[in-house]
Amino acid sequence: MPAKNDDLHGSAPDDADVALLLIDVINDLEFDGGDALLTQALPMAAQLATLKRRAKHAGIPTIYVNDNFGRWQSDFTTLLAHCLEDGVRGQPLAEQLRPECDDYFVLKPKHSGFYATTLDLLLRYLKVTTVILTGLTGDICVLFTANDAYMRDLHIVVPADCVASLQPDENRHALIHMQRVLKADVRPSTALDLNALKRPSGAQM
Amino acid sequence: MPAKNDDLHGSAPDDADVALLLIDVINDLEFDGGDALLTQALPMAAQLATLKRRAKHAGIPTIYVNDNFGRWQSDFTTLLAHCLEDGVRGQPLAEQLRPECDDYFVLKPKHSGFYATTLDLLLRYLKVTTVILTGLTGDICVLFTANDAYMRDLHIVVPADCVASLQPDENRHALIHMQRVLKADVRPSTALDLNALKRPSGAQM
Amino acid sequence: MPAKNDDLHGSAPDDADVALLLIDVINDLEFDGGDALLTQALPMAAQLATLKRRAKHAGIPTIYVNDNFGRWQSDFTTLLAHCLEDGVRGQPLAEQLRPECDDYFVLKPKHSGFYATTLDLLLRYLKVTTVILTGLTGDICVLFTANDAYMRDLHIVVPADCVASLQPDENRHALIHMQRVLKADVRPSTALDLNALKRPSGAQM
Amino acid sequence: MPAKNDDLHGSAPDDADVALLLIDVINDLEFDGGDALLTQALPMAAQLATLKRRAKHAGIPTIYVNDNFGRWQSDFTTLLAHCLEDGVRGQPLAEQLRPECDDYFVLKPKHSGFYATTLDLLLRYLKVTTVILTGLTGDICVLFTANDAYMRDLHIVVPADCVASLQPDENRHALIHMQRVLKADVRPSTALDLNALKRPSGAQM
Repeated sequence: MPAKNDDLHGSAPDDADVALLLIDVINDLEFDGGDALLTQALPMAAQLATLKRRAKHAGIPTIYVNDNFGRWQSDFTTLLAHCLEDGVRGQPLAEQLRPECDDYFVLKPKHSGFYATTLDLLLRYLKVTTVILTGLTGDICVLFTANDAYMRDLHIVVPADCVASLQPDENRHALIHMQRVLKADVRPSTALDLNALKRPSGAQM
Repeated sequence: MPAKNDDLHGSAPDDADVALLLIDVINDLEFDGGDALLTQALPMAAQLATLKRRAKHAGIPTIYVNDNFGRWQSDFTTLLAHCLEDGVRGQPLAEQLRPECDDYFVLKPKHSGFYATTLDLLLRYLKVTTVILTGLTGDICVLFTANDAYMRDLHIVVPADCVASLQPDENRHALIHMQRVLKADVRPSTALDLNALKRPSGAQM
Repeated sequence: MPAKNDDLHGSAPDDADVALLLIDVINDLEFDGGDALLTQALPMAAQLATLKRRAKHAGIPTIYVNDNFGRWQSDFTTLLAHCLEDGVRGQPLAEQLRPECDDYFVLKPKHSGFYATTLDLLLRYLKVTTVILTGLTGDICVLFTANDAYMRDLHIVVPADCVASLQPDENRHALIHMQRVLKADVRPSTALDLNALKRPSGAQM
Repeated sequence: MPAKNDDLHGSAPDDADVALLLIDVINDLEFDGGDALLTQALPMAAQLATLKRRAKHAGIPTIYVNDNFGRWQSDFTTLLAHCLEDGVRGQPLAEQLRPECDDYFVLKPKHSGFYATTLDLLLRYLKVTTVILTGLTGDICVLFTANDAYMRDLHIVVPADCVASLQPDENRHALIHMQRVLKADVRPSTALDLNALKRPSGAQM
């Protein structure tokens, strides 16, 4: 007897053990300190673009978990178009990390990707038990999202080269905290074996 | 001392006492029974289009609370474009109730507009204490949303001529239930004085 | 690789496919209409006491999902003691349905057992996929809880003889609604095969 | 037109601008490292007991936000009785910080006091806009709760002498993080003017 209602409200996406979350990478960076953050974010974006390609090959779905920046009347498409415009500070990030048609989107109104969003439900429908958290900023939105992921009993991977913060020191502290308290795997993306992250069996929550 | 953080994560929309919610009106109706539902929905849509214009004049914001129909990889813009295509059964609804640029969107994954969405937070930022619930279907998604609105201590208005269900009888039962249990005002939209719905003072939750 | 953290915050209860929920049965009934509700509730309580015993034999856990009746400063023990006092209108209910030491408790502040409570998480840790909903009142708190259970993809059983409402007619309407919209099994408890409700395999949400 | 339903489900507690939260102080400390944590917690408890008395005089309600330590079948009364027993390691804490009859309780199943609990709703009914966070441990449950309070636009006060962690260094890092990211006031309790924390006017969220 399947637990899932099979009406139109429950049409479930494909199963996945692991999901790659890109946090706040579609971002115009048009705020105080945005320039300094861009300096930290650019090398991160190059690493993350590679990780995203590898994830796609491994059958791991990508979910953009992105702030709506208070633009409650727009959607992700509008936000993306804005960030791809010439002259926008965050344009190089959006360019490198541009979503593809099989990626998922979750607009978040606050720091954690789980707060007042559909992310928890989406991950459950995807049967995800491990999340790879990446993006901006390591010491705020990535950290808040990681805390919430931990309370939901998800395994957490935060590749150290795929998160960036305004202050490198704060980025490092956040990684240490996530490793110590949240048992996060913080090895750089280059050391990650994506296939090994998948569950051996059909074990579940 | 303001309670709200004024950083980019809390940029709040304008204050409003009342919000008009359009539930699942952007809908291709391409499912069993969709034809019969269209018959019920067409006269409703005409009434609702008028109510939406009146709400705009009264300064009452409109929020589209719409199912994503399992299309977790698309957004509201894509869904709207699909529903506006020629030949799509729900096209006349989408045409009459097409969103404008100052309307708000909330994509819901399940029946209630409050479940796993940002609606609760959006209403709180808008300082809404009364919701006018309209759309499809009166006995399912409107009813589920109304129940959740009631638990959040919101005043509920469900204009009888602005909701439709597959079976007129079920629509009527749902209205009676919302009136009796949820203390909903179910007068037809033509009898509603929108300005009177606004709070006299700054009283709040 | 287990998804669950095994620290003290995640000490999980035993697995169960099915849970029996007793809603608002620990209730002093000291409100307008409480007398009339008691008349409806007494025969229900006798049936429910039997069902609870059968559930225990079948290894199905019982969860008391009970209103705190605005007594935010007390807990379930205090509420129970109050309802067991002589002269309290709801005493015969509390007497027949007195919790045992291996039962679970969830205090709910509003109508649905899922709203602002730990119920969702408890059911997930218990690996429950089917809920048997019983208690008071069929047309309000049981109905609200059933709606929320449905959105969480749980199978719903509402034995018609184990729910009561102030008005028998409203009880009947609620049962019809839950059967039609929520696909609930509303056979009387005497017709329920509790062992058959359990999942054949380890299939899950 | 009041937004609040005045039925038995909405009986609201008194208004308060500020609430004092005691996190995980009713705790047997019977786990690895519990001894070392007790060393840190004892001086904290003395300061906190004084702060609690001052809060009572200032009309600020106290809320015990306490882990259920996986004992899903017990309640706060049972947990308290256990922690007050002779020979239990956390007995001196429970003794000094023993709840009184006008205190509030929230049982939390996970690290943050807001996750899967009624805390958010209770604070809203109490009209709280500032929370004073205290207890155990500064770098885990206090920090998780503070993050969630911040996302709910609450002002955060974490008196440095009223939180303790296993490692003093981690306690200090957590305080610095809460001050920097969450704009928390981390002055010691002795420097806090409780009356000044109250809102000057009736301004609200």
